[in-house]
Formats: sequence, structure tokens, C-alpha cells
Amino acid sequence: MIKLTENEQKIDSKIRQLKEAAGSHSPSLFTIVEDLPELNIKVDACFLSNPYATELFLGYLKKELVDTGKLRDVLEFYPSQNDVIADMISKSININKDNIFVGNGAIEVIQAVMHTFVGKKIIVNIPTFSSYYEYAREDTKVIYYQLDKKDNYSLNADKYIEFVKAKNPDSVVIINPNNPNGGYLDYKDLRFILNNLKGIENIIIDESFIHFAFEDSEYSLISATELFKDFSNVIVIKSMSKDFGIAGIRAGYGVMDKYKVSRLLKNGFLWNSSGLSEYFFRLYKRDDFFNEYEKVRKKYIIEAQSFFEELLKIQEIKVYPSMANFALIELLDGSTSADFVSKMLIKYGVYTRTGSDKIGLSGEFIRIAGRTKEENKIIIDSIKDIFN
Amino acid sequence: MIKLTENEQKIDSKIRQLKEAAGSHSPSLFTIVEDLPELNIKVDACFLSNPYATELFLGYLKKELVDTGKLRDVLEFYPSQNDVIADMISKSININKDNIFVGNGAIEVIQAVMHTFVGKKIIVNIPTFSSYYEYAREDTKVIYYQLDKKDNYSLNADKYIEFVKAKNPDSVVIINPNNPNGGYLDYKDLRFILNNLKGIENIIIDESFIHFAFEDSEYSLISATELFKDFSNVIVIKSMSKDFGIAGIRAGYGVMDKYKVSRLLKNGFLWNSSGLSEYFFRLYKRDDFFNEYEKVRKKYIIEAQSFFEELLKIQEIKVYPSMANFALIELLDGSTSADFVSKMLIKYGVYTRTGSDKIGLSGEFIRIAGRTKEENKIIIDSIKDIFN
Repeated sequence: MIKLTENEQKIDSKIRQLKEAAGSHSPSLFTIVEDLPELNIKVDACFLSNPYATELFLGYLKKELVDTGKLRDVLEFYPSQNDVIADMISKSININKDNIFVGNGAIEVIQAVMHTFVGKKIIVNIPTFSSYYEYAREDTKVIYYQLDKKDNYSLNADKYIEFVKAKNPDSVVIINPNNPNGGYLDYKDLRFILNNLKGIENIIIDESFIHFAFEDSEYSLISATELFKDFSNVIVIKSMSKDFGIAGIRAGYGVMDKYKVSRLLKNGFLWNSSGLSEYFFRLYKRDDFFNEYEKVRKKYIIEAQSFFEELLKIQEIKVYPSMANFALIELLDGSTSADFVSKMLIKYGVYTRTGSDKIGLSGEFIRIAGRTKEENKIIIDSIKDIFN
Repeated sequence: MIKLTENEQKIDSKIRQLKEAAGSHSPSLFTIVEDLPELNIKVDACFLSNPYATELFLGYLKKELVDTGKLRDVLEFYPSQNDVIADMISKSININKDNIFVGNGAIEVIQAVMHTFVGKKIIVNIPTFSSYYEYAREDTKVIYYQLDKKDNYSLNADKYIEFVKAKNPDSVVIINPNNPNGGYLDYKDLRFILNNLKGIENIIIDESFIHFAFEDSEYSLISATELFKDFSNVIVIKSMSKDFGIAGIRAGYGVMDKYKVSRLLKNGFLWNSSGLSEYFFRLYKRDDFFNEYEKVRKKYIIEAQSFFEELLKIQEIKVYPSMANFALIELLDGSTSADFVSKMLIKYGVYTRTGSDKIGLSGEFIRIAGRTKEENKIIIDSIKDIFN
């Protein structure tokens, strides 16, 4: 069982304070580095993004903006309006631009949808990404659908449909793959659910981690945006932060009925993209960039999956099946997740995320992101060492 | 009178299409450059920002982020949460952090205030920045207070107080200096108005151009945030885009009653800053950066004022008094503002903004931003030439 030394306990109490200040999320690495200069952080395994994609984006940015001096234009001038950027995304995802709402990160799309379209009752599966209940309006009732620990917190389509029909909400949210466990609902099951829930006004499908999921041996890209063409009650929410490794530039979008897009743009959201997110979306529609991206996406999937296999060999933890770029692990030796997080951070410089603040998880849980091959090795070695 | 050649007329019709698509705003320079590659744009005099401040920010960015490789951290990781950044701003403006709401540009603060706090009735002075009426909720009635052309569209405190008291709104907006004319209400008059309008729930003071105004020969910084300490119904909205020349990074904030800040953060706006705007606000609180900024702010004020003096010498236009970094000019020779904009853009590569889409302006108006000394000379020479 993990025990903190006296010195570690002192730092631990500061970590707990920062965590408390950050609410149901993790304090950012910036905040931690600034407030705890005594730490030597080597790996941010709290952070769910593809580091190879960051590298790729940075390469383009250096070549096209920094070296040419064009970075100035991107920082100095106003970026284009919402519908101009929607038009760029339209070309990348083969969806009419009138169906695309561009957000300052997916979180702004979540906020806009929760505040504007979700009505009196929404069903949120737990465990989940907390914004889906935290951003609910005061007059919206949030009903939790508890994913079963016996099913490894995966979504069972039949049980889910039955529950939704019985509660009759106006909105439901499916995160696919789900955060924090990485559970994946395949395309066929998703279509089955949509076919059975045609009467629901808003079916929100959050695909922020979908680029890491696969259904064939080629790791071909999957997306529910295709299903949107058949089911107009679908709202697909997509963060670009994770798959493209660019959380700092805040890029995301939603695909939804065009009346919903016009409603949002009617009195707001005109200039919510930054110059860099506009630059990113300009890249995103370019074949040269996209082809390079596909290589690093697949490379990262392969490494994440082999990372999960290494985790599976550690006896003191249970690893939940994941189609995302992170694994939910349960501590089986009696250690608390708070002690695990502090020990990993203080002794090994590896920042991981507790699952103990997640509604719907019962046990001591940690969510660990897959990073580069080298970083994954540091994470694995640290966890092995922690239990010795 | 300005006449377009046949060839200019062809390009002009494309410009008009872009303008139409951009609604009550100007199409961005990116859009224009992309859609009209035949143009050779030399000066963006549509764009209201201090180019010397952009230079200063870029210098810091290069030294501290690009050259050190730290740019990666800013782009890859999640920025800090709203209240962490509010704490940084707090140190810069000497206001309690609980009174600061950080926005993805001032426009997000405007949107949040218009959607959340403005009630059934708001008074908006015209001519104005259009978002103050466009972002109104459907159940908010917008009452226009027409600034008098005979007063050069400046705000007369007594007449204004009388009008507001007669209409009894819950909210009013004062942009100071006003956009698009640059009219300035001095600190003493502003206090007088606040003293007389204590019963109004929200007095929104938009200070996006205040860094260009001055009341003494030292050009000392002025701000209504000091007045907020005496009048809790004041909501100060501040864009950083204009004074710091960084519109592309989207940085802004609002200063308001702490209950209003908590209301906004209760179910939204957690991660609305980008990595670069966080970096900017970290700079903003540093003395070394701020001292350098003060130099370029004053330099730019001096040049803008001498630019206005040159404009005043041109007989075919009337120049309205301005304490901002732009001048509103009226065409007196019978030319239309649309022809002026097109001619300036096509023949001289100078992008200016029409005022003909502004509610509350009667006549043919152009808004021209002051830029660098060299660019101002190009603008002046072009205008002189256009009337020859």
C-alpha cells in the first residue's frame, strides 16, 4: 500500500489545496509548476492528447508562420467570423457549413447547447465529463444513468434505451469513447440507439476522443457526423484538443440542425475563434496536413494500445478496456487515489488524475493518459516501482 | 467626386458581396486577401489597433516562447481556468479578483452581460458598436439614444441623464471613447452621470479604446474601473485587442459586482482563455512589460493625434474630434462612402471602413484607423490623391 513520507505529506497538502481550488477538474500544469516549484515534472499523464500531433502542428506553424513572419498577422488581426470558419470545417468533414457551429474549444459548444437547447430534462451517463451536468441551466433537471461497474462501465444499448424511454427526457448525452473510462460504443450500436430514440429532441454525441477509436485493422477514422445525416436530432460535439494535441489554441465545433446553428449565431458567437484556431482549421482542410496527421494518429493509437497492455501486467491495478487515449485504472491494494497521485507526482514527476471526484465511480480510481513511447515507459516503471 | 473605373467596378462588386456576407461588420483582412488575390493591400486602416504594441508583444513572444521552445507548452496544454487568470488581471488593475470576469475577447463579455444581466430594456447610444444591439436577447427592448450630429456625436451628460430617467431602463451602455466617432466623456462627467443614475441596474461602460484617451499632458492612463469602486452597478468591459494590438489572441475582461461574476461562472466559462491570452495576461502584470508598453502607448497617441491634424487639412472631408485611435470622417464632396472604400482599397491598397451601415450616422462616413507613422503618410497621401 502506498505511504507518503513526511516530506511528501507536506507537498501533498499543497497539491490537495490546488485540486480543491480547481473544483471537479485538475489544476493545470501551469498552475502546478508555478505554485509548486519544488516539483520536477517529467510527464503530464493527466493530459489527454496526442503529443505526435502537437509535434506535427508545431512543425507547420514554425515553417509557415514563425519562419515567414506571418505569425504577426495571426496575432494582430481579427480572425474570421464563425460562418467563414464553419465553411473551412465543412470541407474537412463533408457536412454542409450551415450545420456547423464553431466553438472556442468544444467546451463552448457544450455550454451553448446546454444553455440554449437542452430543456427541462437531460440524461447524463455516469461516470462522465463533469461539464455535462455542471453547465446545466438552473431549470434543467439532470438525471444520471449509472453505467454498471460489472459491465466495466460500458454502455449497454438495450438497457440504455429502456431507461431513456422510461424517463422521457428532451435531451441525452453519449460521450463516445466515454471519459473517464474509454468505453466504446460501436457504430452499429450507436445507429441502433438512434433508431430507437427518434422522439428525443437532442441526442448529444461527444466525439472528442473518437480519433483514437477503431473498428478495423487499418484504424480507419470513425465519426457519428455521418449518422447526423440520417438523424437530425443528433448534435455531434467535437474537440480538436485531444487528437491534434492543441488544447491551448481552443478549437472545437458542433454539427447540428441548421436551425440550431442559426439560433446560436442570431445574437452571439460571431468572433469566438482565435487567429491560431483559424490557422488550424485552414490546415485541417489541406490534404498534405491531413495525410501527415493520419500517420501520427495511427502511430499514437498503436502506442496507446501497447501502453494499455503493459498496464495490464501490473497486478495491483485493474485496467478498464479503453478505445480512447487513456486508461481508467482501479487500485486494488488498498491505496487511495489521492496518495497515488501525490506519490507519482512528487517521487516520479508523473502527473496523473484522480478518479475519486468523479460521480459514478465506486472505488479508488486513476485516469492515466498514454503519451509518447518514452514517456509511457516512465509511467509504467513508476507504477511498478510504487507498488514495490 | 470619386468615380470608379470599369475595372475597379468589377472588383467593387466583389467587395460589396464580401461586405454583405459580413453583416454589420467588415470582412476580415484574411477573407479579403483570400477572395480578392488581385488586390495589393498595403495598409489596414480598418483595423483599430496599436501596431507598436503588437511589435512589443511579438518581441516578448519571440524571446520567451519561440526561442526557448516554450511555445509548445502554450499551444499543447490546457490554459488555466477563468478565476486563475482573473487573479493575474487583478494584480494589473488593482481590482479584487472576485470582481473580474475573463472573456474570450471583450465580445464574449458583451455577449454574457447582454444575455444574462440586461433585462427588459436597455438604452444604447447611436452611432455605436453594433454588438450592443445585435446581441440583445429577444425579450430585451433596445431603445436608441441618438447622439446629436450638431454636437459632433459627443455625449451631453445633462441631456443623456434626462433621457435615461424618462425611459427608466434596467441597463445602459456608454462606450468611452465612443466607436465609431471617438467622442470622449471625461472622468468628471462620467462620475456626474453615475451619481445621477444610481437606480439603474447595469451601467455598462465599454473602455475598449480608453488607453488612447488622455486628460493631462503626460497622457496618463485613465479608467472607469476606479469608479466601479464607488458605483457597484457599473460593469466595465475592456478589450485588450486594440491597445495591445493582439486581436488574434482574443483577450478581454469585465469588471463587475462579484455576484454577477459568480453567476456567470456558476455554469460556464471555465476554460475560455487560450494559451496565448494566458501568456498575455501573465505579461500584463509584469513591470518590465508594462513600462515598455507605456512608451509605445504614448508614442502611438502622439502619432494618432498628428494623423488627425493632417486629416483636418483636407478640405473635402470633415474630421470629427476623437480621443480614440481612429477618426470618423464625413465626405463633403458628394462621393459615396462605398466608392471611397473601394477606390482606396483597389487603387491605393488602403483598407478603410464605411460608416454607411452604422445606425445613427446620417451622411457619407468613413472610419479610419491611425497606424504607424509611415502607414499614416500612405493613408493621407491616398486621400489627398483621391480628391484630385
